[in-house]
Amino acid sequence: MTTQVTVWTEYREERSDPAVKAVYPDGIHAVIADGLRDSGFAVRTANLEEPEHGLTESVLAETDVLTWWGHVAHDEVDDAVVDRVQQRVLEGMGLIVLHSAHFSKIFRRLMGTSCNLKWREAEERERIWVVDPAHPIAAGLGESFVVEPEEMYGEHFDVPAPDALVLVGWFAGGEVFRSGCCYERGRGRVFYFQPGHETYPTYRQPVVQRVIANAVRWVGEVRFQPSTRTKDPSPTGWYLTPAPVAT
Amino acid sequence: MTTQVTVWTEYREERSDPAVKAVYPDGIHAVIADGLRDSGFAVRTANLEEPEHGLTESVLAETDVLTWWGHVAHDEVDDAVVDRVQQRVLEGMGLIVLHSAHFSKIFRRLMGTSCNLKWREAEERERIWVVDPAHPIAAGLGESFVVEPEEMYGEHFDVPAPDALVLVGWFAGGEVFRSGCCYERGRGRVFYFQPGHETYPTYRQPVVQRVIANAVRWVGEVRFQPSTRTKDPSPTGWYLTPAPVAT
Amino acid sequence: MTTQVTVWTEYREERSDPAVKAVYPDGIHAVIADGLRDSGFAVRTANLEEPEHGLTESVLAETDVLTWWGHVAHDEVDDAVVDRVQQRVLEGMGLIVLHSAHFSKIFRRLMGTSCNLKWREAEERERIWVVDPAHPIAAGLGESFVVEPEEMYGEHFDVPAPDALVLVGWFAGGEVFRSGCCYERGRGRVFYFQPGHETYPTYRQPVVQRVIANAVRWVGEVRFQPSTRTKDPSPTGWYLTPAPVAT
Amino acid sequence: MTTQVTVWTEYREERSDPAVKAVYPDGIHAVIADGLRDSGFAVRTANLEEPEHGLTESVLAETDVLTWWGHVAHDEVDDAVVDRVQQRVLEGMGLIVLHSAHFSKIFRRLMGTSCNLKWREAEERERIWVVDPAHPIAAGLGESFVVEPEEMYGEHFDVPAPDALVLVGWFAGGEVFRSGCCYERGRGRVFYFQPGHETYPTYRQPVVQRVIANAVRWVGEVRFQPSTRTKDPSPTGWYLTPAPVAT
Repeated sequence: MTTQVTVWTEYREERSDPAVKAVYPDGIHAVIADGLRDSGFAVRTANLEEPEHGLTESVLAETDVLTWWGHVAHDEVDDAVVDRVQQRVLEGMGLIVLHSAHFSKIFRRLMGTSCNLKWREAEERERIWVVDPAHPIAAGLGESFVVEPEEMYGEHFDVPAPDALVLVGWFAGGEVFRSGCCYERGRGRVFYFQPGHETYPTYRQPVVQRVIANAVRWVGEVRFQPSTRTKDPSPTGWYLTPAPVAT
Repeated sequence: MTTQVTVWTEYREERSDPAVKAVYPDGIHAVIADGLRDSGFAVRTANLEEPEHGLTESVLAETDVLTWWGHVAHDEVDDAVVDRVQQRVLEGMGLIVLHSAHFSKIFRRLMGTSCNLKWREAEERERIWVVDPAHPIAAGLGESFVVEPEEMYGEHFDVPAPDALVLVGWFAGGEVFRSGCCYERGRGRVFYFQPGHETYPTYRQPVVQRVIANAVRWVGEVRFQPSTRTKDPSPTGWYLTPAPVAT
Repeated sequence: MTTQVTVWTEYREERSDPAVKAVYPDGIHAVIADGLRDSGFAVRTANLEEPEHGLTESVLAETDVLTWWGHVAHDEVDDAVVDRVQQRVLEGMGLIVLHSAHFSKIFRRLMGTSCNLKWREAEERERIWVVDPAHPIAAGLGESFVVEPEEMYGEHFDVPAPDALVLVGWFAGGEVFRSGCCYERGRGRVFYFQPGHETYPTYRQPVVQRVIANAVRWVGEVRFQPSTRTKDPSPTGWYLTPAPVAT
Repeated sequence: MTTQVTVWTEYREERSDPAVKAVYPDGIHAVIADGLRDSGFAVRTANLEEPEHGLTESVLAETDVLTWWGHVAHDEVDDAVVDRVQQRVLEGMGLIVLHSAHFSKIFRRLMGTSCNLKWREAEERERIWVVDPAHPIAAGLGESFVVEPEEMYGEHFDVPAPDALVLVGWFAGGEVFRSGCCYERGRGRVFYFQPGHETYPTYRQPVVQRVIANAVRWVGEVRFQPSTRTKDPSPTGWYLTPAPVAT
């Protein structure tokens, strides 16, 4: 069954900022979506300006994996939509958080921390190293790859220790960053991937597209399982949940 | 320097429910606080009915470790207070989350998940096993201890995989539970400890008091370190590191 | 491509001990292998008495996943074979360690600890709980399942904290056990699964066969990737990367 | 009670290689030991040429924390001594593994992996970043520090994912490395710390001495607890718990 991906972006700077428009004339989402279609996924896009930011109950019900890119409008995302996305992740939807979306409401909600980091915009070389070569997200990447130019993101990155750390970035200016971090929250898997500054053509790089496609496969692997909890008194008396839990 | 502990409870059922009052006539907080004073900590208490629930900026500024017990009034806790406690944890304050506080706003905020579980109130025997005997929280516990009677809390417990799992509970009715879970969030340490039903004298048990005292030592060990980050807010309000650090 | 599984056992007590022979007349390996064939895997078996214990270089070269059951003859396993199996795991072969093989040389080698535990043979009921319901090894299991009778294995289990803890066992006599533990070692994945006493028909239970089949899929998922490291042995025998990669 | 540290080195290149002798005329162990004495620890040293490499039963019995530096003579370390050290770590002794000791028998024994890495000797600048600022080993370090010159150690480092990752190194040539890794094995804590090439005065740097002193405190924190296990060896030599603990 084809994995259904929804690519979400603000789609704002691509229309308002010439420097961004020059790199992503059809929007960042278009480039991410094309890369994923080339990898065989079924892809739709959604953005901030749409009603309910394009993330209605019915869209989420058909989404196996959601990718999220945001930058200047985190605060404009409606809390009710964040609640809905979080609930869907906890039920098993995969979530891929891209670059400046480290400060998105949904990522901070799932992490419980500030998600703060250091940054510098200096057209720098980044080399990203694979520190967990057997992880499915590292498939086909080799031992390292270069993204250049890229915005520097530096430690300390204020997130919980990842359940698996797959990628560590090296920046020419002297910093390192945990650039590929895996988490499980409820039944859902979450992957944070650091590259992707809006004025650099990062998402056009095949190796970056490969990481995102690998990540879609990995976070999308979870089967949505109906809860099997027994809600009736068991005849054996073994296992009894008499009433709704902890109301 | 003596660790400063603030013991927070709702302090409601102890006044309204005769069955609870019978077990904790002076409030659950009084028993927890006495146990911690016996272990040499400086202890104050706070509860829901106080202004700002007793957790003002100045109280938190003097608190190294906060213990939290709540049950029927999670929703009455003001979001601004939850924000403040979360911020203080991220800066390094220790937090111990007790029993039914698995559903507290502050715990769910720091975990990012539903924190749901199964339960049954049946005056059952619980045996708690140490699965990480070298962890400081396990000091002096032996390989297992009994809490009886206790309310059953059963898996699946919907929390992120703990950074360290110290205790696993066994219940006579057939369930298991991850009863002692360690987390790090920001610079703060968090410990969830499962026993403590309001109609059972759990917090009077010396071994339970020992676990809580051990946990105060462990979560309270973090030194509050001034951030070394260059704090020049950029025009966008983000942080800017003006020069490459590699030079 | 079909996953190639090699099912290894000592195949000794099934021939020498009537109580074991009664339950597994064709050997424990035959029952495990049949279950895996029913799940669509290509399966061969090997045992202690064969030359090189049936684990020659060529057999291992064709093995994606090795399952290991041992009990009374751990010390008879040749160290050279253990070296070879360890090397193959580090290159990416999956390993499933069953029941009393907690004390096998290969498991202790990969863990670095004593792998000691407590035990009691008393025809007890065990209930195994899923604590990580989104893990692939938990697929289709429901929230718990019963294995009865089973030998008690109890904490403390002296292994490193698992990279993922999937299953926790409850025993009627009062113990708990981390019954399903995931590890990554080198490029290989390792799964320890606790049930499987030789005088009980545990491996005939469909739910137990399901766990083992799920585990084969999970540990067998790793692609063997040729190392991309520059392989110029330096005079000391270490690896040398001749030129800085940043230029 | 003062923590008793034993500083172990090969003490060979300092006597045979003029380039090493020039930097460490009294041996690497002397510099490490002096730094630890300045931090208030009780320190003795031991080396390869001593009987039993200076690590007799009685020395280990009085050792809370062992630091290990080796390079050219890993294979000359007697397996019986490695067994003894491993056993002592599993009982609770702290172990700090320094630089090229990543290939020592004791570290590979405790990790279960090859512990391989990439390296280059080019008098490079290394900057080490703190990625877990609340960890006790990071106390007082600031957000990063420079070690220059240092030998490059690069990923992939073939070790199990650390229980806590505290430090990540950046090298001028383009590599990164997990430079400060925490493990728990049995009741013992293990810390691997990457800097320390024998021809560079790394161990004379105050910040490097600070990391090692912090690590001694952290790995030395474990209390040796007498096992509470019922120690009635059964006829098979396994442990027997004679009666169900639930009664």
